[in-house]
Amino acid sequence: MTEGCAARTSAAPAETAGRRPTLAVVGATGVVGTVLLEILSQREDVWGEIRLVASARSAGRKRAVRGAETEVLALSEDVFEGVDVAMFDVPDEISARWAPIAVAKGAVVVDNSAVFRMDPDVPLVVPEINAHAARVRPRGVIANPDCTTLSMIVAVGALHAEFGLSELIVSSYQAASGAGRAGVDTLRAQLAAVAGTELGGQPGDVRRAVGDGTGPFPAPLALNVVPWAGALREDGWSSAELTVREESRKILGLPELRVAATCVRVPVVTTHSVTVHARFENEVTVAQAHEILANAPGVVLVDNPAAGEFPTPADAVGTDPTWVGRVRRSMDDPTALELFVCGDNLRKGAALNIAQIAEFVAAELTTP
Amino acid sequence: MTEGCAARTSAAPAETAGRRPTLAVVGATGVVGTVLLEILSQREDVWGEIRLVASARSAGRKRAVRGAETEVLALSEDVFEGVDVAMFDVPDEISARWAPIAVAKGAVVVDNSAVFRMDPDVPLVVPEINAHAARVRPRGVIANPDCTTLSMIVAVGALHAEFGLSELIVSSYQAASGAGRAGVDTLRAQLAAVAGTELGGQPGDVRRAVGDGTGPFPAPLALNVVPWAGALREDGWSSAELTVREESRKILGLPELRVAATCVRVPVVTTHSVTVHARFENEVTVAQAHEILANAPGVVLVDNPAAGEFPTPADAVGTDPTWVGRVRRSMDDPTALELFVCGDNLRKGAALNIAQIAEFVAAELTTP
Ligand SMILES: NC(=O)c1ccc[n+]([C@@H]2O[C@H](COP(=O)([O-])OP(=O)(O)OC[C@H]3O[C@@H](n4cnc5c(N)ncnc54)[C@H](OP(=O)(O)O)[C@@H]3O)[C@@H](O)[C@H]2O)c1
Ligand SMILES: NC(=O)c1ccc[n+]([C@@H]2O[C@H](COP(=O)([O-])OP(=O)(O)OC[C@H]3O[C@@H](n4cnc5c(N)ncnc54)[C@H](OP(=O)(O)O)[C@@H]3O)[C@@H](O)[C@H]2O)c1
Repeated sequence: MTEGCAARTSAAPAETAGRRPTLAVVGATGVVGTVLLEILSQREDVWGEIRLVASARSAGRKRAVRGAETEVLALSEDVFEGVDVAMFDVPDEISARWAPIAVAKGAVVVDNSAVFRMDPDVPLVVPEINAHAARVRPRGVIANPDCTTLSMIVAVGALHAEFGLSELIVSSYQAASGAGRAGVDTLRAQLAAVAGTELGGQPGDVRRAVGDGTGPFPAPLALNVVPWAGALREDGWSSAELTVREESRKILGLPELRVAATCVRVPVVTTHSVTVHARFENEVTVAQAHEILANAPGVVLVDNPAAGEFPTPADAVGTDPTWVGRVRRSMDDPTALELFVCGDNLRKGAALNIAQIAEFVAAELTTP
Repeated sequence: MTEGCAARTSAAPAETAGRRPTLAVVGATGVVGTVLLEILSQREDVWGEIRLVASARSAGRKRAVRGAETEVLALSEDVFEGVDVAMFDVPDEISARWAPIAVAKGAVVVDNSAVFRMDPDVPLVVPEINAHAARVRPRGVIANPDCTTLSMIVAVGALHAEFGLSELIVSSYQAASGAGRAGVDTLRAQLAAVAGTELGGQPGDVRRAVGDGTGPFPAPLALNVVPWAGALREDGWSSAELTVREESRKILGLPELRVAATCVRVPVVTTHSVTVHARFENEVTVAQAHEILANAPGVVLVDNPAAGEFPTPADAVGTDPTWVGRVRRSMDDPTALELFVCGDNLRKGAALNIAQIAEFVAAELTTP
């Protein structure tokens, strides 16, 4: 099998049968990469060699994975030699340039950037919902959805399978780490500047205290919420908002689904929350929704407000599932449900979903 | 005119004609009361004597209003002697007991508690929308709406007047001061506990740091968002959520309006934010919505994301208007708009609206 052929289909099972596949983690030193190494150390180990890759800045540093200190390699063509699966957790432009190179070298790429997600020749995969789509990858690339979509889609997908989804109206409460290490550092620095003060009650006082230190955010995030994430797209929409629409449609296989999202950043370190107004083709009840969510793989139902039980980021962070609570049927529409959903944007929202996809590919490659 | 009569209509213009009306501020030492005193000092002065009232705990303390240090009186029947208008900014049970007493003494009560808002004999007033309703007050009481409803209703009302509102789907980002002084103190103490730490990345780490210090909130608020406000009502809804539905219907005079709200507390000191999906009877355009909002009294339009301009709590806090931005027409529904709205929950959300209502009554009382 030539490299060119590998780019269009998957590596032949024969090649990897009898040995464990080699994995490259590109972006191993980033926020997502760091969580990925933790997850690789926690999950059942299906991998042979694991190669860690980042920029030349990080070359020679060590990172622990599966208990072994492993040297970080600088990104180059050579690092993909003999690699079966390459996970990419790097900025868009690095994925755009290097994913095709990894594919040409024979790897299946699982990419976490925004570059390939809407490419019709690239499957966009959430294993609980559309694992089958990962088998057809004409460009040798499988895309990992955006973290905001991922934070809710497992729960929404389970309800869709039963009731038939017709509309989603979504508002997000997105964590700082969705903007990478710079986002976390910015929020922590701003919190240090406002804690112990009386700030937050006068126009612009937080803005003055924070000064130019808004990092990747277009306004202060401490003691504030910022109704903007991503880049400006058409008609006043942000890329984060259109991403929720486009990716939900693609993952669920519903190209006509009505979706309206408003994406807002909040001063939380990690774990995105989302309020969902989901309208279905059929009437719904809270009891049915509870039963579906309680049994859905990858979902935890926490919904007993009388006992003070509902999901919050502080509880969901660092855990794998999508947490769902506050399930209510709209008083004025028996076909609609209101939900509050939390998901760790670095785990299910990124690293965990990538690991799940990569394991799916590994199983495919090693099954004769 | 007897006291009994005063309870059913307003004080006779003849009584106050020729003199400025006497005002009592009940709850003058609270979070809302404090802002009210500021506002009374800033607005055109229509009042004669201003009497400050709180619990016996505060009696004898001094508070500045209109530049004069004024002694706080303990709540009693006597404090309402000769009072024309009494503003109540106290807990529900104090309003329930004392508002009828103030009315019996001849005052018109403008009440900010939840007790009277849905009483069919009590008007629920937002001067920009339904000032006329304040004239008909069979119980002598005018209710001030809840802060979350007030944070958005001026903007929504302006759009309704033009397009005819049919549905509201709302998610809130509510500030700590919506829970009074205890809410602000709790958030500040929690921020001091988490600032300068690495907390926020592990399950329960914020919860452990905060311990029992969650104050009026059912979960930690620093580095977190809490999908709960108010008390548990039927079918899993919180009182805050049903309040948005019931009060929006009453203020707009649309008893059949479809409303679904999810209320979430965020770590902001003051200023509630709301995302709104508003569906109308007719097609809408962003250009028309911009024009309406730019000209609506009490509304500021801040909507130029290309220049990084949208409302945030840090900018809206301490100001009077309702700030609106992120105006988008739903891609899948030409009759629906998405908005992001911010309003200072202590000003327009409480004290300012009360001051406006009271001034309306004062004008009525003094106009022959
Ligand atoms: N954070 C999230 O919640 C989230 C969720 C979903 C998707 N994503 C996407 O995942 C990707 C990574 O995000 P992140 O949050 O982990 O970002 P990050 O913390 O900034 O990490 C970026 C990673 O990319 C590497 N990198 C940067 N420039 C490079 C270059 N020229 N050559 C090789 N490696 C380079 C960095 O290596 P050095 O340390 O050597 O610079 C680092 O390992 C992005 O595409 C992001 O949009 C993030
Ligand atoms: N905060 C908001 O955003 C907001 C918005 C809309 C409506 N509201 C409503 O407005 C009211 C006041 O809220 P707040 O946030 O200002 O509360 P707060 O900060 O706790 O203040 C409560 C006020 O009530 C007084 N009070 C308490 N018990 C009393 C008693 N037994 N007799 C006389 N006065 C008594 C207090 O006086 P002492 O200082 O002497 O105890 C204080 O002045 C509540 O009904 C609240 O639901 C609040």
